[in-house]
Amino acid sequence: MGVIVQKYGGTSVGSIEKIKAVAERVIEGHRQGHKMVVVLSAMAGQTDGLIDLAHKISPEPDLRELDVLMATGEQVSVALFAMAVKSMGYNACSLLGFQVPIHTDALYGKARIQDVDTARIMRELDQGRIVTVAGFQGLDSDGNITTLGRGGSDTTAVALAAALGAEVCEIFTDVDGVYTTDPNICPKARKLDKISYEEMLEMASLGAKVLEIRAVEFAKKFNVPIHVRSTFNREKGTMVVPETKDMEKIVVSGITYNKNEARITIKKVPDRPGIAAQIFEPVFRSGIVVDMIVQNTSEDEITDLTFTVPKPDFHRTLKLVKEVARDIGAEAVLGDEDIAKVSIIGVGMRTHAGVAQQMFKALAKENINIMMISTSEIKISCVIEEKYTELAVRTLHEAFGLDREAEPES
Amino acid sequence: MGVIVQKYGGTSVGSIEKIKAVAERVIEGHRQGHKMVVVLSAMAGQTDGLIDLAHKISPEPDLRELDVLMATGEQVSVALFAMAVKSMGYNACSLLGFQVPIHTDALYGKARIQDVDTARIMRELDQGRIVTVAGFQGLDSDGNITTLGRGGSDTTAVALAAALGAEVCEIFTDVDGVYTTDPNICPKARKLDKISYEEMLEMASLGAKVLEIRAVEFAKKFNVPIHVRSTFNREKGTMVVPETKDMEKIVVSGITYNKNEARITIKKVPDRPGIAAQIFEPVFRSGIVVDMIVQNTSEDEITDLTFTVPKPDFHRTLKLVKEVARDIGAEAVLGDEDIAKVSIIGVGMRTHAGVAQQMFKALAKENINIMMISTSEIKISCVIEEKYTELAVRTLHEAFGLDREAEPES
Repeated sequence: MGVIVQKYGGTSVGSIEKIKAVAERVIEGHRQGHKMVVVLSAMAGQTDGLIDLAHKISPEPDLRELDVLMATGEQVSVALFAMAVKSMGYNACSLLGFQVPIHTDALYGKARIQDVDTARIMRELDQGRIVTVAGFQGLDSDGNITTLGRGGSDTTAVALAAALGAEVCEIFTDVDGVYTTDPNICPKARKLDKISYEEMLEMASLGAKVLEIRAVEFAKKFNVPIHVRSTFNREKGTMVVPETKDMEKIVVSGITYNKNEARITIKKVPDRPGIAAQIFEPVFRSGIVVDMIVQNTSEDEITDLTFTVPKPDFHRTLKLVKEVARDIGAEAVLGDEDIAKVSIIGVGMRTHAGVAQQMFKALAKENINIMMISTSEIKISCVIEEKYTELAVRTLHEAFGLDREAEPES
Repeated sequence: MGVIVQKYGGTSVGSIEKIKAVAERVIEGHRQGHKMVVVLSAMAGQTDGLIDLAHKISPEPDLRELDVLMATGEQVSVALFAMAVKSMGYNACSLLGFQVPIHTDALYGKARIQDVDTARIMRELDQGRIVTVAGFQGLDSDGNITTLGRGGSDTTAVALAAALGAEVCEIFTDVDGVYTTDPNICPKARKLDKISYEEMLEMASLGAKVLEIRAVEFAKKFNVPIHVRSTFNREKGTMVVPETKDMEKIVVSGITYNKNEARITIKKVPDRPGIAAQIFEPVFRSGIVVDMIVQNTSEDEITDLTFTVPKPDFHRTLKLVKEVARDIGAEAVLGDEDIAKVSIIGVGMRTHAGVAQQMFKALAKENINIMMISTSEIKISCVIEEKYTELAVRTLHEAFGLDREAEPES
């Protein structure tokens, strides 16, 4: 049998008891004959504790040294895990980023994996060992420690799975899998049996926090099947896999929402070539990520331009844009923080007509006004008033046939 | 100006404030033009916390993984220290054992340094950086993390000083230097301005806890001058240096004591060749370290054999020895835990006659009975009843002229 890569997040290894439980679960796979490679995050709370320490030294700690500090979190996890496996009578070996090695670029705090050397891991596996690899960390070409940024352990796991040609990359987390929408606001949300990489990417970037977006991109690139499942039960979770024909039968796979954006509108912008570039130049230069941008067809060479930015960047952006607006002679700049974005996602949209219309009608029926619309091949997003978010999600969930069937009365 | 290696122990970097204070002190040296290399221990308490974690996983945690775990302690210290230096406007760079690299053998938990590569450190120093190196850790030839055992940071510092040809290796600690004896039991103890490596080795191995014994051996081998001094003031401490002519003028440099041993006597051992080997075989095989061994000239081919072992090994040793005693037909085995060893140390003994006699007379004057005597070139040790320890130390301190002169009345 082949290699299985498993990744356990911070809550899954958040205590000595939990680490022992994970060890038992991994040993099961080992006893079934699989070659087990286990990627671990730092124990829950550790990472925040280390960041606190750094901030007591300096409000803006040096990035190289911050990575050296942060990397200790995963180091502790893998050492304790390997001890636990050994104390249960099985052989194990921990490997840090520099020992694999996992080569990255030198962007401290958000490094990207460039190459994974599999020789050492394979040697340990061939000797019958369970190999545990510290997630989130790597080594740049000068031998400095780097980290991949928050959630980077997912990426480590998928990169290892790709390099090792693993059968599957299992991402263990504190939820059962990927749901059609957030069960907290829509009790009828269903767990998906499978979802395509493309859909998962849209789900991840729109706020479903089960899988790190870069990990999904990596998995898509190298065709690594991901199994998102719970650490705390034995149920099957959700397979994230390449798109298949039968996925297209389902028009919409999931509904997501995002309350963390704010909207800025520039009224009566003179519509001439280069104007958009001029407006966004200071925003991009400040490192602010603009999400949706909507510009209407102009009337009399005057147009309105609307876009959204993350709420924490709202006031900064507003100030920057007001300056530009004055320079270019726009009429006014309006801002609105009380908005939300609801989206429907599904590869089936490509082959089904009228999906957008169906969405607009469902929202209209509940008197929810649509402020902005943005579409991609497999996604339609609408910006609405924030207070309607939950209602909109439940309405769309029902409208696209995602509601779970009622449990039979017992 | 040349390289200065400084080492700060766990209490010296025990809090964020202390780390900042150390950074300020190191920057002073840097501004004076020295190339500063700073070896740090784990923050006080960290190491014990990590050991606790490991023991919650297993009463006997795997040694390889224990080293992976323990190495995080120093990693945290050097990262925070380098951040602190940088936040004060100076350039710094932390290096872990694998990054220097410090090559060791593969004896996890008590590895020995085999080689220090200075290229990376020199490159960083030449770029004007303050270099901080994680103490206590190294890398074996297979790329595994090793640790040097408790107090190993002293050894790291001396090894770096030797490899870099440093002017001096400054060991910063929570005491002012090396004293003629323990000031807690002898208020007239004086700080020594200098002491030879040989004397320091005897002092260290007999219980003066300022410097790790392996660090002194290393310093002696490579002629590295060590300056033991306080983190918390600017006073000069004690220089540990090669022996010089003028050192011989002083007969005794220091008095040490050790209450951590127990005595075992085998009565009426048949005195035939190979009998000592037969007696100690099971003791050595159990890894028990025997300190003093005394055997009297035999009468009628029957002799008494007495030796000391660490108190924690006393009962185990007693059991082993009783079995052997039966086998060889010895009369009885007696044990005594209430003993102490007091020693006088000084390179001057080599050239002064009657030193032992002077010691015995001083003890006799206070009615302190001597149970065992053992001598080396620069040391005489007597085993006495434990309750007389403090009295014996004060008596010898005065007898050999070590008492501090009375402060002039103000």
